[in-house]
Amino acid sequence: MEESRLRELLEEVRAGDRAIDDAVAALRSLPHTDLGFAKVDHHRRLRCGFAEVVYCPGKTPEDAARIAVEILSGSDTLLMTRATTEIVTAVQDSVPDVEYHERARCLTVRRGERAPPCGSVAIVSAGTSDLPVAEEARITAEIMGAAVETSYDVGVAGLHRLLDRVESLRGARAVVVVAGMEGALPSVVGGLVDAPVIAVPTSVGYGASFGGLAALLGMLNSCAAGVSVVNIDNGFGAGYLAALINAPADD
Amino acid sequence: MEESRLRELLEEVRAGDRAIDDAVAALRSLPHTDLGFAKVDHHRRLRCGFAEVVYCPGKTPEDAARIAVEILSGSDTLLMTRATTEIVTAVQDSVPDVEYHERARCLTVRRGERAPPCGSVAIVSAGTSDLPVAEEARITAEIMGAAVETSYDVGVAGLHRLLDRVESLRGARAVVVVAGMEGALPSVVGGLVDAPVIAVPTSVGYGASFGGLAALLGMLNSCAAGVSVVNIDNGFGAGYLAALINAPADD
Amino acid sequence: MEESRLRELLEEVRAGDRAIDDAVAALRSLPHTDLGFAKVDHHRRLRCGFAEVVYCPGKTPEDAARIAVEILSGSDTLLMTRATTEIVTAVQDSVPDVEYHERARCLTVRRGERAPPCGSVAIVSAGTSDLPVAEEARITAEIMGAAVETSYDVGVAGLHRLLDRVESLRGARAVVVVAGMEGALPSVVGGLVDAPVIAVPTSVGYGASFGGLAALLGMLNSCAAGVSVVNIDNGFGAGYLAALINAPADD
Amino acid sequence: MEESRLRELLEEVRAGDRAIDDAVAALRSLPHTDLGFAKVDHHRRLRCGFAEVVYCPGKTPEDAARIAVEILSGSDTLLMTRATTEIVTAVQDSVPDVEYHERARCLTVRRGERAPPCGSVAIVSAGTSDLPVAEEARITAEIMGAAVETSYDVGVAGLHRLLDRVESLRGARAVVVVAGMEGALPSVVGGLVDAPVIAVPTSVGYGASFGGLAALLGMLNSCAAGVSVVNIDNGFGAGYLAALINAPADD
Amino acid sequence: MEESRLRELLEEVRAGDRAIDDAVAALRSLPHTDLGFAKVDHHRRLRCGFAEVVYCPGKTPEDAARIAVEILSGSDTLLMTRATTEIVTAVQDSVPDVEYHERARCLTVRRGERAPPCGSVAIVSAGTSDLPVAEEARITAEIMGAAVETSYDVGVAGLHRLLDRVESLRGARAVVVVAGMEGALPSVVGGLVDAPVIAVPTSVGYGASFGGLAALLGMLNSCAAGVSVVNIDNGFGAGYLAALINAPADD
Amino acid sequence: MEESRLRELLEEVRAGDRAIDDAVAALRSLPHTDLGFAKVDHHRRLRCGFAEVVYCPGKTPEDAARIAVEILSGSDTLLMTRATTEIVTAVQDSVPDVEYHERARCLTVRRGERAPPCGSVAIVSAGTSDLPVAEEARITAEIMGAAVETSYDVGVAGLHRLLDRVESLRGARAVVVVAGMEGALPSVVGGLVDAPVIAVPTSVGYGASFGGLAALLGMLNSCAAGVSVVNIDNGFGAGYLAALINAPADD
Amino acid sequence: MEESRLRELLEEVRAGDRAIDDAVAALRSLPHTDLGFAKVDHHRRLRCGFAEVVYCPGKTPEDAARIAVEILSGSDTLLMTRATTEIVTAVQDSVPDVEYHERARCLTVRRGERAPPCGSVAIVSAGTSDLPVAEEARITAEIMGAAVETSYDVGVAGLHRLLDRVESLRGARAVVVVAGMEGALPSVVGGLVDAPVIAVPTSVGYGASFGGLAALLGMLNSCAAGVSVVNIDNGFGAGYLAALINAPADD
Amino acid sequence: MEESRLRELLEEVRAGDRAIDDAVAALRSLPHTDLGFAKVDHHRRLRCGFAEVVYCPGKTPEDAARIAVEILSGSDTLLMTRATTEIVTAVQDSVPDVEYHERARCLTVRRGERAPPCGSVAIVSAGTSDLPVAEEARITAEIMGAAVETSYDVGVAGLHRLLDRVESLRGARAVVVVAGMEGALPSVVGGLVDAPVIAVPTSVGYGASFGGLAALLGMLNSCAAGVSVVNIDNGFGAGYLAALINAPADD
Repeated sequence: MEESRLRELLEEVRAGDRAIDDAVAALRSLPHTDLGFAKVDHHRRLRCGFAEVVYCPGKTPEDAARIAVEILSGSDTLLMTRATTEIVTAVQDSVPDVEYHERARCLTVRRGERAPPCGSVAIVSAGTSDLPVAEEARITAEIMGAAVETSYDVGVAGLHRLLDRVESLRGARAVVVVAGMEGALPSVVGGLVDAPVIAVPTSVGYGASFGGLAALLGMLNSCAAGVSVVNIDNGFGAGYLAALINAPADD
Repeated sequence: MEESRLRELLEEVRAGDRAIDDAVAALRSLPHTDLGFAKVDHHRRLRCGFAEVVYCPGKTPEDAARIAVEILSGSDTLLMTRATTEIVTAVQDSVPDVEYHERARCLTVRRGERAPPCGSVAIVSAGTSDLPVAEEARITAEIMGAAVETSYDVGVAGLHRLLDRVESLRGARAVVVVAGMEGALPSVVGGLVDAPVIAVPTSVGYGASFGGLAALLGMLNSCAAGVSVVNIDNGFGAGYLAALINAPADD
Repeated sequence: MEESRLRELLEEVRAGDRAIDDAVAALRSLPHTDLGFAKVDHHRRLRCGFAEVVYCPGKTPEDAARIAVEILSGSDTLLMTRATTEIVTAVQDSVPDVEYHERARCLTVRRGERAPPCGSVAIVSAGTSDLPVAEEARITAEIMGAAVETSYDVGVAGLHRLLDRVESLRGARAVVVVAGMEGALPSVVGGLVDAPVIAVPTSVGYGASFGGLAALLGMLNSCAAGVSVVNIDNGFGAGYLAALINAPADD
Repeated sequence: MEESRLRELLEEVRAGDRAIDDAVAALRSLPHTDLGFAKVDHHRRLRCGFAEVVYCPGKTPEDAARIAVEILSGSDTLLMTRATTEIVTAVQDSVPDVEYHERARCLTVRRGERAPPCGSVAIVSAGTSDLPVAEEARITAEIMGAAVETSYDVGVAGLHRLLDRVESLRGARAVVVVAGMEGALPSVVGGLVDAPVIAVPTSVGYGASFGGLAALLGMLNSCAAGVSVVNIDNGFGAGYLAALINAPADD
Repeated sequence: MEESRLRELLEEVRAGDRAIDDAVAALRSLPHTDLGFAKVDHHRRLRCGFAEVVYCPGKTPEDAARIAVEILSGSDTLLMTRATTEIVTAVQDSVPDVEYHERARCLTVRRGERAPPCGSVAIVSAGTSDLPVAEEARITAEIMGAAVETSYDVGVAGLHRLLDRVESLRGARAVVVVAGMEGALPSVVGGLVDAPVIAVPTSVGYGASFGGLAALLGMLNSCAAGVSVVNIDNGFGAGYLAALINAPADD
Repeated sequence: MEESRLRELLEEVRAGDRAIDDAVAALRSLPHTDLGFAKVDHHRRLRCGFAEVVYCPGKTPEDAARIAVEILSGSDTLLMTRATTEIVTAVQDSVPDVEYHERARCLTVRRGERAPPCGSVAIVSAGTSDLPVAEEARITAEIMGAAVETSYDVGVAGLHRLLDRVESLRGARAVVVVAGMEGALPSVVGGLVDAPVIAVPTSVGYGASFGGLAALLGMLNSCAAGVSVVNIDNGFGAGYLAALINAPADD
Repeated sequence: MEESRLRELLEEVRAGDRAIDDAVAALRSLPHTDLGFAKVDHHRRLRCGFAEVVYCPGKTPEDAARIAVEILSGSDTLLMTRATTEIVTAVQDSVPDVEYHERARCLTVRRGERAPPCGSVAIVSAGTSDLPVAEEARITAEIMGAAVETSYDVGVAGLHRLLDRVESLRGARAVVVVAGMEGALPSVVGGLVDAPVIAVPTSVGYGASFGGLAALLGMLNSCAAGVSVVNIDNGFGAGYLAALINAPADD
Repeated sequence: MEESRLRELLEEVRAGDRAIDDAVAALRSLPHTDLGFAKVDHHRRLRCGFAEVVYCPGKTPEDAARIAVEILSGSDTLLMTRATTEIVTAVQDSVPDVEYHERARCLTVRRGERAPPCGSVAIVSAGTSDLPVAEEARITAEIMGAAVETSYDVGVAGLHRLLDRVESLRGARAVVVVAGMEGALPSVVGGLVDAPVIAVPTSVGYGASFGGLAALLGMLNSCAAGVSVVNIDNGFGAGYLAALINAPADD
């Protein structure tokens, strides 16, 4: 909005030629005005419930505990990811009703009455070493209100275990597939279901897995349509995205 | 093969209406028949419409045209991606009602009556060089039944152009963001909307863009939640995934 | 600015309790209002002169020519980089007073009276193959108003050629150093001068130069302080940045 | 030089039938003579038949044709890989009974009576674009005497096509699996059969496939045991190795 | 499920001896039942003996010990790879007759009468630092029933040591070659023998060996035919594959 | 200077035809003569103040302390970067007036009267984990005499926080932008200001951030002009360069 | 040399206390004085003969021809590397006695009487595709005065061919080893001779050779001592270095 | 086996003084015996003195000490590189006259009378952090008989320090240049001297130095002729090679 237009509009207001409501509407569409409360008043997210999230690495136990208390003063839910033992202890001291998910390395708080879980998110993982990442995805999707069903340890080298789960996978609105090593599982799952597949490469593997790079490249090059990829070991990102997709549209 | 069909077949056997040899033959093909039907009879996909897709590279013009004719004998819609000039000509000769989308390098056919586009997919691109990929995403999402709104040329170096489009982006059920160079746009968009963001790195750039690697890594490391990534230049994959997310759930 | 504050302000305007000038000032500081003309009204840039820039790759000759004409309808200067022979011809047809810099692959237009070049930018290059990139930097810096002095073909394997130029380099406010192969020159120059050094790796080299990656990494790891790096072959970026540094501060 | 020849020579020396100078000359060439014979008199290879191989790239058509003629003066079989159109024509002019395998880009000659193919090698490929590499493997294995069965276009995104072929794969002594993109197929096949699996990554794919690197890494990190990998697009190497494994041991 | 079983089941249905519900249940589980039997009833593997394998990393000592006990309740043999000291102790407590191979970091159990080792696998290593990987290959091949002969410390920089072993290598049905640094040994061995060569790159080396990447690339690019490659440090994979190749075909 | 010229000059001196002052001036311009005190007598640097810098890694605490004392015997200012706890203690013992900046891991000494800070450098960082690098840049720029204003925690995923700071950023002569993960911030800042932007990638991130490589590539490929890049985590280099740019030119 | 010392010296000259010859000697040792003619008057190089070298890529045929003529006006020898057909023609037109080495892509001129070749350089190559690089090394070493003996096509997969050449290699003062693919040859040669080995990786290979990277890494990680490496395909660099090593020391 | 020995043996056979069985046995071992002698009886190496070398990493202290004692039973000199504190102690216990070079992390033993150092090797390093590698090179070259002169801490950012050393460098027969970060020093030295330059990249640096990769690539792409490169941090390799070049030829 250029200054001349602005000045003109204000003069119309002063002259009584333009109603204040009308001027407010015009000025409201200034983008930044929106920016301040954008995320808060959005319907979809509100409907399914949504937690504040704290990524723990790089924070001292004291900081982590203080942030937890602060958030809970204004929110009924809290999710803390990648919590170290020290952080777990510090938060437990300050927030007695915090729940610790050891395998997922997550802390959660859910207070007050909660809407029942909605929709259906499937979380699939290839090997037992992929569990921490898969569980981080599960905890994240659940605290965002999604109903989650898990199919763990169904890697492609033993295909029958996966085929046993196909019926269950087909009911999901979003499927998170967690795999390390060659990262082939999302391609196979993507060929069996037609819900969106969110692939999570893990750093599980050795030698030429290069910390998850092999799985990451494999997933990006998936021959199955409907597959997209998040960062290596990013269970939180996958669970968050799955919950977004799963949430009922508000139209 | 659905359970009802299986039960029916067994009853025919019991009743002596079907020879055992015949039943064996029918059952032998069971696993793949089951799999083969999977995608066809699934409700969600049917509801919004869905096209057969041909990826052209590596096919001769004659092959491409023959495949097009073959598919259209059993389908009302067809999408061919990455079509070369030679393929376009060959297909146009065989399929007079084919539509050519030059910028997107796609060919489409839509016959019969079509349901009105449903939902809302936003497609955002950073620079003019990203247009072919963005258009491929648009054509793909549209032929799968999605209503699409585009916001092109809104790269982060001129932020106001993007901010002007925020209102429009916020209404979408899925947002495809196409960007080359540093690939920063999905992060910025991801912070402004809360629909799922599908990031498409493009090979646009020079020097240390390394054919899109810089954009790809940037997008995988996005600091915004709700962002996932498809392969470099994979507009089709992004459009397909967006249409899947956009399609109304069938529960 | 929240709506209540906005409404209040408008009511003060209507009531005559707040001068329009005052209201304009308040509303002006809404970030986005600025965004629209941010770059245009800024003092430093205006003082030294500044050209619109067109990056040619990916544009058709016709598009390029049309854009050139369009820009020149509102600007006295124009810079087009990476122009192909076809684009050069097309632009020359539409803009008779365009100047073609063959080695730099640039087209420029300068109309009207120009302020004399200000400050001092030095452009240094290692080998003759680095010349196109160095020249692109020179043309860019000059059209942005900088006085430029060049020292070409002074690679580190013949150190005396560089040492002969030291006196000249020491007078510069910014030094652009263009080099391929091992990219050692910016480190050596950085140790001889104390102006900011902008290093430009070039894709000159073979074998393990990997398209300029060797030079890029060398420059990023420079042992000399005061060195920063732009993208491979990005002469424009370096010239632009040098001109920014060179421009007199406006305080 | 075999021990019997050596003993004979020494006896000639002792008997005075051979001058010492002459014996010295014969013995001087000993090491390489020994090595030279090595491959020729080995039983396993001889039993199944074995062709001389020419890798065409980098050879002129004339050179290629001359080499072909030369080899055939001492051998009943010949395999030429990666033959260009020019080389095909030149060899066909010189060797009228040469057979050209267009898709595999190979030329073969088989003269005289041949033993019937022995054993069983399976060659599996993921997509139609992988065919040239798969066919190169087939031609190679066959000319080395193996009976080959192919299963093409059975990529993991349509699992039922692969499952249909399982019975056939299970009979093989060695399985060559050719795949591009994410390279997941060898892992899935490796979980279904227990013959050795030779994985061949292809350069098929785009974007972050990086010329076959994604498939290569995927295969090296296969979660299935019994899988080893050859170079990208190296159909010849895989076919050769499969034929070696397939050949009956000579003990 | 084999055809005979299927036919029998259908006849029971026709005869009224089996309720339809029961038949449906049996047929529903068809695909994976089929898959489940695959590995167990296969002849080749059974003939030479075969052990269950546990990959220890990521398992707690307690888990590892419990898994060991569980497997041994149904199997006479067990192989545990990459065992840490803690795991070794825990397993030794629970399984008194476990054997610990320190250099190979493996645990094995062999109970009951065992068939004599069959065939011949050669394991070759370049330097003393490659021994742990070579020994892991040896232990694996041996517990799968192969007769193994080792040639350690025969790197290419001292060629005579390798040439001394040629005679021995030529008798093998499969040769595992373990090498770090430049990974040249498989190429040299591949030129001396005509058995299949399984190359194992190790992470031995420093500087630009990049954790075994140099050896890996070297082996993939071997100029000798008949060489394939497994993952870096993957002695288990190589030994497993060598034992598969070594096992007599069952036709 | 060639020998003949040198000899001639000396003869003029001997003959009294050339004053010694004049000869000294001629000989002074021998490059290397300059080299010795080049950096010391340069005007621009002197005007704003400048500290000796010690990069601590690889130094023992004793060495570090001894070097600190030595430098302070001839300088009023000192900057030590990347100081470990041990080094901090050792230096504090020897230099009681040393100041320790914990977050920046820097030690500084400023003695005597100091000129007031000049110009204006802005330091912007994306996330809280980027703070150590941003603080290292701040300390460096300040001890070199620059007035610094910081805008921390203004990452692109929450754009309004950055937009709130635009006014402040626009006043700066140089802007340092510190960011990890996808490294998008410098592009966005570069589009909002027209001062030179020095981008500092940090190693903050996980998975495919590859120790800061993703951010580095993103910044090098910035779509905004006026951006250059220093090494990963190199806060010192960025602060140093910003201070150079900020220092008033001496012409 | 500090100013005070300089002034003192000049005063001694004026006073006649120091002979001009003596002063010249003192001033001569100012480094830069040397720099101008450093390479020309050095003994070792002069003794064996030495040619000016022109690297052709990036030069127009006219430029190349003009440079050739210019150099030959002051030199009896000339070497031009990587000459294209166009450059060859242009130079032949201007320099009738130029010699063209087609395989090596080099042009040479040798005029006047030449000293007989001295010392002994061996040049070894692995495959026929490595010949252009090997020949470039040979031409370079020869024009610098070295006696060269070549051993081509002696790759490690056929070891006996190399062993046949050992005697010849052992007489060399420097051995250049040229190899692509896995780059194993320098390690094997390095174990057989004790002259310095200069390894030249070539871009020969396919798939995971990555343009010579595999060979380069292999050579850098050579397990044989006495091996150093030059850039991929850099036959000139290797030949030049071999000639330097081969030249008799002048003490 | 030299020809004279061979002739003698044959004459014994002819004379009946040696049984044929015995001669066969002697001749069978011919190739490797020949190889075994190779390094021992070679003149050049013997003339300058040469030590056995032990690379310590991966060896237990006991092993290291036992190997040291064993070697010294047959050799007057010993070099052990990369010795840990534990190994140093263990060897000192077993070999009282061992000398420990702390910075170089080397152990040496020199017994008996030694020839005076011959020739001249220069060792140059860029920064203080490069010292351990430079010292390893020095110790290695010295124990192999070379006279060594060092120029440490002469990095390119302070060019005058290097220029001060030029005279000294020019006298050397081989120059080892050790540098980390951007690795520019060998290029600059290569332009100043004409002895062979052996470049040693070090892993010194941070961020985008990628463990020495930046320096390695820089050195491989050196614009100066006469430069070759050894592995990252491979001081031993460089010192060894320099000593080989330095040793007087034996013709």
